[in-house]
Amino acid sequence: MAFDGTLTSRDKDFSAWYLDVIAAADLAEHSPVKGSMIIKPYGFALWEQIRDTLDTQIKATGHQNAYFPLLIPESFLKREKEHVEGFSPELAVVTHAGGEKLDEPLVVRPTSETIIYDAFSRWIQSYRDLPLLINQWANVVRWELRPRLFLRTTEFLWQEGHTAHQDEMDAEAEARRMLEVYQSLAQDTLAMPVIAGEKTASERFAGAKRTYTIEAMMQDGKALQAGTSHNLGQGFSEAFNVQFTDKDGGRKFVWLTSWGVSTRLIGGIIMTHSDDAGLLLPPAVAPIQVVVIPIFKTASEEQAVLEAADALKALLDYRVHVDARAHYSPGYKFNEWEKKGVPVRVEIGPRDVAHQSLVIVRRDTGEKETVAVEEAATVIAQRMDDIQKNLAHRAHAFREEHTEIVTSDEELAVAVAQGFARAYWCGDTACEEAIKAETTATIRCLPFNQVLTGTGSCVHCGKTSQTEALFARAY
Amino acid sequence: MAFDGTLTSRDKDFSAWYLDVIAAADLAEHSPVKGSMIIKPYGFALWEQIRDTLDTQIKATGHQNAYFPLLIPESFLKREKEHVEGFSPELAVVTHAGGEKLDEPLVVRPTSETIIYDAFSRWIQSYRDLPLLINQWANVVRWELRPRLFLRTTEFLWQEGHTAHQDEMDAEAEARRMLEVYQSLAQDTLAMPVIAGEKTASERFAGAKRTYTIEAMMQDGKALQAGTSHNLGQGFSEAFNVQFTDKDGGRKFVWLTSWGVSTRLIGGIIMTHSDDAGLLLPPAVAPIQVVVIPIFKTASEEQAVLEAADALKALLDYRVHVDARAHYSPGYKFNEWEKKGVPVRVEIGPRDVAHQSLVIVRRDTGEKETVAVEEAATVIAQRMDDIQKNLAHRAHAFREEHTEIVTSDEELAVAVAQGFARAYWCGDTACEEAIKAETTATIRCLPFNQVLTGTGSCVHCGKTSQTEALFARAY
Repeated sequence: MAFDGTLTSRDKDFSAWYLDVIAAADLAEHSPVKGSMIIKPYGFALWEQIRDTLDTQIKATGHQNAYFPLLIPESFLKREKEHVEGFSPELAVVTHAGGEKLDEPLVVRPTSETIIYDAFSRWIQSYRDLPLLINQWANVVRWELRPRLFLRTTEFLWQEGHTAHQDEMDAEAEARRMLEVYQSLAQDTLAMPVIAGEKTASERFAGAKRTYTIEAMMQDGKALQAGTSHNLGQGFSEAFNVQFTDKDGGRKFVWLTSWGVSTRLIGGIIMTHSDDAGLLLPPAVAPIQVVVIPIFKTASEEQAVLEAADALKALLDYRVHVDARAHYSPGYKFNEWEKKGVPVRVEIGPRDVAHQSLVIVRRDTGEKETVAVEEAATVIAQRMDDIQKNLAHRAHAFREEHTEIVTSDEELAVAVAQGFARAYWCGDTACEEAIKAETTATIRCLPFNQVLTGTGSCVHCGKTSQTEALFARAY
Repeated sequence: MAFDGTLTSRDKDFSAWYLDVIAAADLAEHSPVKGSMIIKPYGFALWEQIRDTLDTQIKATGHQNAYFPLLIPESFLKREKEHVEGFSPELAVVTHAGGEKLDEPLVVRPTSETIIYDAFSRWIQSYRDLPLLINQWANVVRWELRPRLFLRTTEFLWQEGHTAHQDEMDAEAEARRMLEVYQSLAQDTLAMPVIAGEKTASERFAGAKRTYTIEAMMQDGKALQAGTSHNLGQGFSEAFNVQFTDKDGGRKFVWLTSWGVSTRLIGGIIMTHSDDAGLLLPPAVAPIQVVVIPIFKTASEEQAVLEAADALKALLDYRVHVDARAHYSPGYKFNEWEKKGVPVRVEIGPRDVAHQSLVIVRRDTGEKETVAVEEAATVIAQRMDDIQKNLAHRAHAFREEHTEIVTSDEELAVAVAQGFARAYWCGDTACEEAIKAETTATIRCLPFNQVLTGTGSCVHCGKTSQTEALFARAY
């Protein structure tokens, strides 16, 4: 069932616009179970593109996929104190199975550290087994009180990497390397610029020593945490007794990392690029990169035009869809594919066939050009590059326009009402919390690339500081 | 941790041999939650090969992937009477979430007919929306009392296709088409011959009008149901009110089909091809198709040999792994890759480098040949074909040798003790049950290709029959 209404504009109501874009592009819908989502075919095809791109990168960096159980003994969660505190409120619990009450309840995995490190304790014997580099693609469940399609859903799809290392340096390098993989995915593939940095203690993953993040700016100026990578230290390896025999014969606890991105990235793509006409997809992940609309009136025209469309499809090294549906008008189709965010539309009519030409329309700028068939492949390849770059450029410019350097609570409040604020921060959780209470903005990260490189005063308490924090309201 | 013991032989204890093969190849292990399984990297890489091959076929036949929720309201299951009766004993139930008792328990999906057809009732309006061809790759949970790695696990991975059609003919064609896709996957890709046919009423999927199946013979003579496809009729569409407006303006219930294969196929591959030396993989799905073992003593030899190995890898259009580990002997590596079932092993030593030759060893026959480097690509491609064909041929010959046509209970009992029995069957459930009670054998299917094409007497009651049934003990 296609969305047949008019989209709310971004300016009028950003949240309503977001849901309208999803409905109009037929990406997903709410399911009858509160907070959970059905990912519809077009949305899932988009996820497949993201997943396959990232999976290739995860394998290229030496990781192997595996699969661990969905249901985890409740006692496992409790072994790492901070971990259980962090996840307890969000757990779904299986108490009955096979018609009987279970002796021990099973938790539907909210994340898989515990069950995976229990396995690591069996798999790792000596330093020769390290590093152990594992990844899992899976569904996870976290009970959400305020669900929102793709951004916060009771169940979501993700990958979770889990690795074990001999020492801190190796674990730290892994955590940073995988954040770089995420940064490249976001920027090079999704055309979504991100700011990479470290989370403060209060925003750390439950049980982690250090959490790294990439943060993107949405078109309403809010931040989206797009991916995180954790140096878990040795807390979990102590809780699950993951030890190895080192070269010197000594028994040592491994250092662990974990890192993940999820279907939330689809929400990021939507809120970074889409416009009041609907979805707008970066060519690198568009399930359909080129849609060809044949235009005809008579049967003989239809045949000639469809032949030209199929010939073009055969010629192009892109994901091409020829929309040959007879019972919809070209105008209806233009509108539908615009809402679905296909980067390039090609129109071929009888006159085009006669002139050996076709019309190319860019989704991002609306620009229209008539091109000779013999040049079509070259021009389309060029437009595909242009669009990918333009989306990244536009998003980057938007973020820079909506980022302020601030030196007072007042300036910060104004800045985070419309975007990001960079400011000196003293490192004190009290200042972080006071700002959050006043503005709802949180420290998204301490950026690796600090714009404020000298010494200044904490934006809240005025204490001397050499650390820049990035403040924003966030999803 | 590698398996370092000796494998039980097939003759001595087939069940123990099966588990030894899995452990020796490092495919999977039991998890701490009873009945559930951890699929280890090598086992998961094998699943990825199967999955990707089938996914391509599912898309090539016009289906789109989507994703539906893991947790299903208990009331949904109850709407189709036979369905809930079939699955109730196997359900895992979430009663608490987010720290509270749920108003309505949620079932962890044992299969997704109910939640998907509820969505279909919203997605389908008119005949133009039909056929609707959806597939989902997912994990499902069915509480198993007698778990067995890959064959019966509490949680398993699978795909489930769900399609909606205008009429019976279209649904029937779909159910049969997808069974053919499964048959091709089994035979052409997994080198596992199967007998395709229809299930009897007592073996039908809970809620189906007709169930089709492919049945393979394992090396102990037992049958493995390797994939099923169901014409669901209109029972579910009535239960979930999935109606469409037909061309004539009338409202009609759609006809539904569903079909699935699972990680159980890995069990099928193991029990079809493997031997007392361990796993043996068909080249089409082997995660590593060619393993290259460099043999050297000195550092200069090592360099020359590794260069030759890398050159070979670059040359081959196969999944090649060069085992360059310095701390294991060639003999250890030969043994390890034999247990992991890699179809072709290549050995390169200093003398081979000097003579511009290499040694090729087939995993299926153990045949060894010395080949000139310039011919290596051609010979390896030929051996890959040979092995794929030989595995299929061997398995087919084994099945034929272990299949008897029988005309009495006594003959049937003897036949099913070592393989398959083909016999006339009157169609009466009472005869089917009596045979099951006497021999533990069930009717695996009524084969599409009937060997007994005339008229005969039911193997149990002697009534006149024109229908051949395939009897076997089964996994």
